[in-house]
Amino acid sequence: MKDITIPGGKDAEKARKLMRVFSPLSGTELEEQYPVSRTEEVQYAVEQATAVFPVFSTMSSSQRADFLAVIGEEIIALGDDLIQRAMAETGLPEARLIGERARTVGQLNQFAAHIREGSWVDAILDPADSDRKPFPKPDLRQMLVPFGPVAIFGAGNFPLAFSTAGGDTASALAAGCPVILKAHEGHLGINALVSRAIRLAAKRTGMPDHVFQYVVGDGYITGLELVRHPGIKAAGFTGSFTGGKALLDAANKRPDPIPFFAEMGSINPVVVLPDAMASRGEVIGQQLVWSFTLNAGQFCTNPGLIIVREGPGMESMILAMHEAVLTRQAELMYGKGIRTNYDTRTREMLQQKGVTLIGKGPDGGPLDGQATLARVNAVDFLIQPELQHEVFGPFSLIVVCPDDHSLQQVLRSLGGQLTATLMAEESDMNGREAMMSELMNRCGRLVWNGVPTGVEVSPAMQHGGPWPASSDSRFTSVGTQAIRRWVRPVSYQNLPEAFLPSALQSHNPLNIWRRIGEEWTKAHL
Amino acid sequence: MKDITIPGGKDAEKARKLMRVFSPLSGTELEEQYPVSRTEEVQYAVEQATAVFPVFSTMSSSQRADFLAVIGEEIIALGDDLIQRAMAETGLPEARLIGERARTVGQLNQFAAHIREGSWVDAILDPADSDRKPFPKPDLRQMLVPFGPVAIFGAGNFPLAFSTAGGDTASALAAGCPVILKAHEGHLGINALVSRAIRLAAKRTGMPDHVFQYVVGDGYITGLELVRHPGIKAAGFTGSFTGGKALLDAANKRPDPIPFFAEMGSINPVVVLPDAMASRGEVIGQQLVWSFTLNAGQFCTNPGLIIVREGPGMESMILAMHEAVLTRQAELMYGKGIRTNYDTRTREMLQQKGVTLIGKGPDGGPLDGQATLARVNAVDFLIQPELQHEVFGPFSLIVVCPDDHSLQQVLRSLGGQLTATLMAEESDMNGREAMMSELMNRCGRLVWNGVPTGVEVSPAMQHGGPWPASSDSRFTSVGTQAIRRWVRPVSYQNLPEAFLPSALQSHNPLNIWRRIGEEWTKAHL
Repeated sequence: MKDITIPGGKDAEKARKLMRVFSPLSGTELEEQYPVSRTEEVQYAVEQATAVFPVFSTMSSSQRADFLAVIGEEIIALGDDLIQRAMAETGLPEARLIGERARTVGQLNQFAAHIREGSWVDAILDPADSDRKPFPKPDLRQMLVPFGPVAIFGAGNFPLAFSTAGGDTASALAAGCPVILKAHEGHLGINALVSRAIRLAAKRTGMPDHVFQYVVGDGYITGLELVRHPGIKAAGFTGSFTGGKALLDAANKRPDPIPFFAEMGSINPVVVLPDAMASRGEVIGQQLVWSFTLNAGQFCTNPGLIIVREGPGMESMILAMHEAVLTRQAELMYGKGIRTNYDTRTREMLQQKGVTLIGKGPDGGPLDGQATLARVNAVDFLIQPELQHEVFGPFSLIVVCPDDHSLQQVLRSLGGQLTATLMAEESDMNGREAMMSELMNRCGRLVWNGVPTGVEVSPAMQHGGPWPASSDSRFTSVGTQAIRRWVRPVSYQNLPEAFLPSALQSHNPLNIWRRIGEEWTKAHL
Repeated sequence: MKDITIPGGKDAEKARKLMRVFSPLSGTELEEQYPVSRTEEVQYAVEQATAVFPVFSTMSSSQRADFLAVIGEEIIALGDDLIQRAMAETGLPEARLIGERARTVGQLNQFAAHIREGSWVDAILDPADSDRKPFPKPDLRQMLVPFGPVAIFGAGNFPLAFSTAGGDTASALAAGCPVILKAHEGHLGINALVSRAIRLAAKRTGMPDHVFQYVVGDGYITGLELVRHPGIKAAGFTGSFTGGKALLDAANKRPDPIPFFAEMGSINPVVVLPDAMASRGEVIGQQLVWSFTLNAGQFCTNPGLIIVREGPGMESMILAMHEAVLTRQAELMYGKGIRTNYDTRTREMLQQKGVTLIGKGPDGGPLDGQATLARVNAVDFLIQPELQHEVFGPFSLIVVCPDDHSLQQVLRSLGGQLTATLMAEESDMNGREAMMSELMNRCGRLVWNGVPTGVEVSPAMQHGGPWPASSDSRFTSVGTQAIRRWVRPVSYQNLPEAFLPSALQSHNPLNIWRRIGEEWTKAHL
């Protein structure tokens, strides 16, 4: 593995563009400089990843599992240096970063356990039948195999868990795909540290060089160079719609289009129904304000839209929200641009027809996002589709629906979402059965009486959703199923046992779950 | 279900464009006329499909299974009318069409059995842990749900099995997606008959109206109208690269891009190794000639490239192929355009540097495709990438590689393929282990000592491959896994049992296989 962008190397001696990271904590640029990757360095990285693929992809799952687990150990071994650097680069509180580090290591361990168990290759065996008429039936066995080198884009809002050694990298390495990471501009120091941890882990576990590499660049130029390179076989992105769409278009316009998974965020509608509101409206209101202002509202599952079916208790719920917002301390946002954009977008929203301000939290420092809650009626919401555009930050909009008909119309107007949430009593669902389907058909995850923030790393998690929440709703970027983005099925027809991958051999040497007919079994064939 | 394009309806009374089908059998146009669907009819069809989706998608799998099975019965009940019409429209021999009808009905029954069994929804259950620190773990349960209305494009080379009630339609209906079929221009009479069978089956099994509809059009205009309509949520296509790419681009350029699965064919390389050639070169040669000339070479798995590692027996294998080609009777191609294109492409290939003709079969009628076998050496193949472009018809090109190095270079030069085949003894693989991976990484199905034609309808079949063989190598268009193209996972978080889909309820009322942790089980939670 070559640290093509660590300062001090021979490349750094030549004249080249250098980047520094802005610190929301100090309000100034940090002193370390990171050289921008040159085009030929991006190409070199892809060539190395291509060369290493045949070796890495044919290592046993248990070897790759060791690698992932040791990456986690090495990240922990970075100790306080990592946390301090992350605080400086993101302004996030220490506790949040320690929690996110635990999540990151947890993800690596989950993928390690998942591939060590081995059934993830989805083996399907369909034995021969030489007596079948009119033609004998061949032996067919299918399993998932990795694509090749993968490009990963570090996310802005999770400097550890969706970045250098985050879920995308972990899932791609687990699958057997060499990774080239485009480091997030705001996390270059974190990236250098975590990349060092990955390099040490690779050395310790006997991985080939270049199994993980990173590149540095500003804007999308370096990202586009990666996505357009013929050696890159798939890519993963978490970030803004604009960024995701630009890279997706580039992936689609290649002479050989590649799978590009982009998680581009959403407004995560919450539907509040009358019985729930009547019995615990104030609590719901407080929960929601907490959720949409958490970490300055910079989570992709931030509930930016609260759709309320009018009824007794509504005004006291909104009053409770008003009070909660007024006392909600402003929190640091990730950067000047994000804060400026938040202010602009909030102002735009409040200027739309029929949108009224319910409350604003206390103002903070120049980079703090001020909690903002607004309200609009269903008709004004329906006639202004721009009210559905995400406001990245601690903002939420209450849509008041006077009846079930307008509620249904509002639901039908919604684009694809990562999550949809129902705040309801079971009695609320009487006569509203279809509403559950309406919501389900528009989201990746349906939450009952909870908040959408907090994305559990689970084999049953779907973090992705219909467009524009993600570029392909058939895949997730969180949870062990995220590995499926980097693999494809291959069928082997009539191969001799000796040449079959061990996952497909008749005596099941890996002792994995396999599908034979419609049965899942660990039995021999 | 409305037959918007059956002649005689009120629309037919107005002036509109009519289409007739050319018969390769008679060399003339058949007399029946089929009105081209107007833009507003395409829109109407999508609106109806959208309206029917909530009903159809929430029917039980066993209801949909009944529907599929009865479609098969009604197709058989069409009797000889269907076979005669198919012979007239395609020129295919009766036996082939009877076989294809059996395959079509078999596919419908396989999907019926697959969804009746029920485990296809890939349920994953991850129960709550309220004691977990620092946050309680929510209950998460995931399953596959259908997308919505799907557009299917009838293929030119399988008038039954990849057409109106073919694998694409069967898999989409199985998933719970209403289907709008773009009928293939060459199969309008077949389409009218099979559509009638589907309509009758829908009536008999109590399906909602408009669960299946079709449209008629020439060129890609009607197809583009379908793919661009916001109500269409996914599409499937089998056909040429040009057609597939145009529709894929349209799908990607929508304001909300949709999954578009195109199977666009390939040249299906066959690698012949020395020990196999020495021991049974003549037999291999005969097998390959049979395979690439079958049905005038109009199968998407037609072996259009035969890569031979020089060695003893090679010349006698090629001689056997020469003899087989010379006596191979020309067969009818599907149409004038296809035959003309075949002649042009064959001529172009033979004019390339270093390409020499080995033999041509006897000439036949004006629509018959003449078997043609050519030869080139590895270097001339490598410097002329255009030699990798598919020739649709009974053509194959032998590439002679003097050594393993040139063989490897030829393999590495190949684009994505539906299939790759090894004609080899086990001893041939000594020292050539890497070759197996090279081939596997370029194809969807790896065949050992067989011919690639003949695509088994199996749960373990992968019919698709890296670009340009298909638009997304993570999916197949043949076999029960084809259903995955039309579904996406949804996670339910903390939903009360009463509101969970039955596939996800704790007591497993459907008695299906579900994943809990890393175990597959039918047990209750």
